[in-house]
Amino acid sequence: MNSTSAPAPCGAWTLDPQLERDTLAVGDLPLSRVLLMNDANFPWLLAVPRHAGAVETFDLDDGQRAQLMRELALLARLLKDLTGCHKINIAAIGNVVAQLHVHVIARRRDDPAWPRPVWGALPARPYDGAECQRLIQAIRKKADLG
Amino acid sequence: MNSTSAPAPCGAWTLDPQLERDTLAVGDLPLSRVLLMNDANFPWLLAVPRHAGAVETFDLDDGQRAQLMRELALLARLLKDLTGCHKINIAAIGNVVAQLHVHVIARRRDDPAWPRPVWGALPARPYDGAECQRLIQAIRKKADLG
Repeated sequence: MNSTSAPAPCGAWTLDPQLERDTLAVGDLPLSRVLLMNDANFPWLLAVPRHAGAVETFDLDDGQRAQLMRELALLARLLKDLTGCHKINIAAIGNVVAQLHVHVIARRRDDPAWPRPVWGALPARPYDGAECQRLIQAIRKKADLG
Repeated sequence: MNSTSAPAPCGAWTLDPQLERDTLAVGDLPLSRVLLMNDANFPWLLAVPRHAGAVETFDLDDGQRAQLMRELALLARLLKDLTGCHKINIAAIGNVVAQLHVHVIARRRDDPAWPRPVWGALPARPYDGAECQRLIQAIRKKADLG
């Protein structure tokens, strides 16, 4: 069967322009670029494996997938510790932006979308600069992202 | 910080009753029970790690997480091959059912929820027996689930 999601191993990885527009940079883990969604409704990170052409998890090799899982668990743990949230949501959807990216979202029982998933639940509420810089610095410190 | 999601390592794992009600059994991979959501709107699997008390991915150890990722990639690949879908969605949400379970869903650009995520998009449409048994047999064969 022809796959619509075969990786393009040639060519350097660059961040998808829509992901870049919607987020703020946090830093790079060994495999993934870590981004903060510019939406103060939820503490919401993205992990984007820096592997050109990856769309599905099976476009990564087994070692990369294990590393991605390690990085997702690290981000989940640190978001839970930083926010004291009730649940972490982790998801690779990609119906709109094809570049493989994984959402890691801190959810609270009193957040404006609970218990529904966050996508499409309400308009993004951009951070003010100070609030966002505090959160990014705290994430960098916890993730050893200098 | 107190965690609300610490694993309860004592006690045997049993499938959450709501997951059992909403699904049809497919079989057991080394770590996860594989279930088919009883919703013919989407080819939709669940992988449920058989680890008592696990709620978050970080309740598994590193080896279990790597195995979970391996099993998710296997299920994603086989759903794509069986259905010829355009995108696989993978997600661990768990806002309603706490027991750690991961959705693996085959999405098509002409499915009734595209490009939105499937949760809450439309009422479940239970399978008729024959359609469902064909799909389960095909999944078992592809996943070596006897």
